[in-house]
Amino acid sequence: MKLLLDLLNIQSVSGGETPMNKFLINLILQRMPNWKVTPIMYSGEEFHDCILLKFGNPKTAVFAHIDTIGFMVRYDNQLITIGGPEVDDGIELVGQDSLGPISCNLKNIDGNLFHDFPRAIDRGTSLSFSQNIRIDDNFISAAYLDNRLGVYNALKICENLENGWVVFSTYEEHGGGSMPFLLKFIMENAPIRQALISDITWVTDGVTHGNGVAISIRDKFIPRRSFIDRVVELAQRSGVAFQLEVEDAGGSDGREIQFSPYAIDWCFIGAPEDNVHSPNEKVALYDLECMIDMYKYLMAHL
Amino acid sequence: MKLLLDLLNIQSVSGGETPMNKFLINLILQRMPNWKVTPIMYSGEEFHDCILLKFGNPKTAVFAHIDTIGFMVRYDNQLITIGGPEVDDGIELVGQDSLGPISCNLKNIDGNLFHDFPRAIDRGTSLSFSQNIRIDDNFISAAYLDNRLGVYNALKICENLENGWVVFSTYEEHGGGSMPFLLKFIMENAPIRQALISDITWVTDGVTHGNGVAISIRDKFIPRRSFIDRVVELAQRSGVAFQLEVEDAGGSDGREIQFSPYAIDWCFIGAPEDNVHSPNEKVALYDLECMIDMYKYLMAHL
Amino acid sequence: MKLLLDLLNIQSVSGGETPMNKFLINLILQRMPNWKVTPIMYSGEEFHDCILLKFGNPKTAVFAHIDTIGFMVRYDNQLITIGGPEVDDGIELVGQDSLGPISCNLKNIDGNLFHDFPRAIDRGTSLSFSQNIRIDDNFISAAYLDNRLGVYNALKICENLENGWVVFSTYEEHGGGSMPFLLKFIMENAPIRQALISDITWVTDGVTHGNGVAISIRDKFIPRRSFIDRVVELAQRSGVAFQLEVEDAGGSDGREIQFSPYAIDWCFIGAPEDNVHSPNEKVALYDLECMIDMYKYLMAHL
Repeated sequence: MKLLLDLLNIQSVSGGETPMNKFLINLILQRMPNWKVTPIMYSGEEFHDCILLKFGNPKTAVFAHIDTIGFMVRYDNQLITIGGPEVDDGIELVGQDSLGPISCNLKNIDGNLFHDFPRAIDRGTSLSFSQNIRIDDNFISAAYLDNRLGVYNALKICENLENGWVVFSTYEEHGGGSMPFLLKFIMENAPIRQALISDITWVTDGVTHGNGVAISIRDKFIPRRSFIDRVVELAQRSGVAFQLEVEDAGGSDGREIQFSPYAIDWCFIGAPEDNVHSPNEKVALYDLECMIDMYKYLMAHL
Repeated sequence: MKLLLDLLNIQSVSGGETPMNKFLINLILQRMPNWKVTPIMYSGEEFHDCILLKFGNPKTAVFAHIDTIGFMVRYDNQLITIGGPEVDDGIELVGQDSLGPISCNLKNIDGNLFHDFPRAIDRGTSLSFSQNIRIDDNFISAAYLDNRLGVYNALKICENLENGWVVFSTYEEHGGGSMPFLLKFIMENAPIRQALISDITWVTDGVTHGNGVAISIRDKFIPRRSFIDRVVELAQRSGVAFQLEVEDAGGSDGREIQFSPYAIDWCFIGAPEDNVHSPNEKVALYDLECMIDMYKYLMAHL
Repeated sequence: MKLLLDLLNIQSVSGGETPMNKFLINLILQRMPNWKVTPIMYSGEEFHDCILLKFGNPKTAVFAHIDTIGFMVRYDNQLITIGGPEVDDGIELVGQDSLGPISCNLKNIDGNLFHDFPRAIDRGTSLSFSQNIRIDDNFISAAYLDNRLGVYNALKICENLENGWVVFSTYEEHGGGSMPFLLKFIMENAPIRQALISDITWVTDGVTHGNGVAISIRDKFIPRRSFIDRVVELAQRSGVAFQLEVEDAGGSDGREIQFSPYAIDWCFIGAPEDNVHSPNEKVALYDLECMIDMYKYLMAHL
């Protein structure tokens, strides 16, 4: 759980993922020797702030995005959004510019957003939700469970993964843009036919807290049914609790797989959360456990 | 016409095109020996549910999408759309889930969609319009003329095609996603500079029943004018009746050619229909004839 | 300035860029011998109406789009838009169809657009704003400063460029489509890691006339922050006046770099204009000067 707390405390809004990139590279280098199989790590300027880990002979890739939603300072104390954050008046925001650390509140005046920091903030400065992590016996609440839990899950998979890609992507919350070059690299080095999206979804009338990880049959986009059927069949055999999701909105790194120039099947699998894209995202610990168990099973059996 | 009736009776909503894929592969294998040139057929898992036919030395490709619009079962008798179907209350829907065949009606309550099947239907089950084909001397009416007529046209082209690609694509009605890998395969195997989109368009104030196939100067997207000019010039020489279409909405597989990493010109050519995306799509038989004749001429002369 | 006037008088709405393509090829062939380094020029049918110039060993590419917004004739005197032009009633439009030159006015009746030309115009004919260039000591006003100034800037860069790509793209105003194949060609021939978008932006409450070229931290899309930081640091060293822009709308050829299958950093740099996408676009001559100076500095130092 120490790892998860660390992940939750690092800022990396879309476009500014360098701090998370550095943290993950350090962490991976430290942990790698204890993993069942030692992966090859690809990172550096030619991958922007993304990281790819290749274990053995991959058939499947797991993608977890390392960016978060947030805000950017425009002119005259105005804020504009990065991704689609909640914009309730009074939300606490933090950041850093050339003059030092920033802590302020979001002002929402008829849909126009401002900060109330007593001095001007440098144009283009990114702000994110002030972090406030709360854990009890059943739930974790914090900002940015989406997608720190997906990243955490990806790191847990690494522990005993024998064959597969584990990939940390960027920009997902703001339209994407790293998946195309990540997929090109994968397909030209150790190609795959199937991918799982390690990300967090929504509590709805059909997907609820405490009933297991959600396997998404569709969101705004529709993956190929024959693949979903195979995933669901394996999920049934796994003995791990899961819920089937059917939505007509929302997207993920799966979207960019769907529209890539490669015939790769994809499926979104993740724990559901409440209070989406707010400082109080809430996930049942049992669902997170199921997510990790399901990925370990599927990466071995798909 | 038997072939067209068969095509109209197969379900293959976007994401679930396997039944149409199987039907087409069987049909092509049976008919191929009677075609003027025997093509090479590419299909199988690495092409998902798509099929490519390479005749001779291709200069031009024809694309026909094999998927249709429809509905998917969400939770509690709710339905969500696949593509953009008509959603009139009372429309008959059919499908199949783990408990057997389904036949029910669409309920549209203030824009929220439900089915009235007496038992719960499996989450994620696809439903499509109940088929009802009506043919008289001048018109054909049915569900899914879009794009069964485009597929039918593509199969008719095969009969005496000497050089060219004939390609059956998937997912078109729901944002696409197969065109990028189809184009990559084509460009790496037998590259082309031009493409025709064999699909069905709309009756409007400028494009009417019985006046020939529509050649589209633009829809939401704008193909390169110099190519359109060349197509229209040939169309004039062909002696086949045609109408010029100019719209600012709608899209096709042409969109994904426009945004592909290849400099391929494209043009949408198809018969116009009334009652678009409803169970009662209606096309003039004369316009369908013109569509087939125009494609045969263009594939020989472009 | 003669060159700029010539550029402003050539019609090339999206999809119909052939006249500008021909003008530029002629001009480049004439001027090339006087440039510090003679580039390799790539053009012709396999590049549609685009042109690429490779100078020395490129590290950076400059992209300038050669298309403009405009209108297309539909049916019954109706007009539809190409890109997002101003649609004020009475605007003068010009064009050409099979019967000869056209000069007419835009009629905007409750948002529906028509022309008032006394005869029918061929379906699919493109119309553009009647050009009216006004220059005084401080400002230039005309139609299509966006993006004739960006093209002009690109041509000025060529004069003493030693290493880099200078690329003229098409379709930008209407969703794009040439950038993907241009990037593929560049990356397979003389790859780059960074790109500058030579285009025109908007006067806003944070970016004003006469205060230098705008360097955009973001528009609708968000380039990687670490690259922007490097550009801004160099801009500070250049001594050339500039303004930092932060917007949440608008796009450019940078969008297609963001979503390309290559890890290429990008930054939009351009003079701001008033009366965007109207016949009266207005730019401060000083800002244009700063734009040219900034590009020359950055192309040498990035």
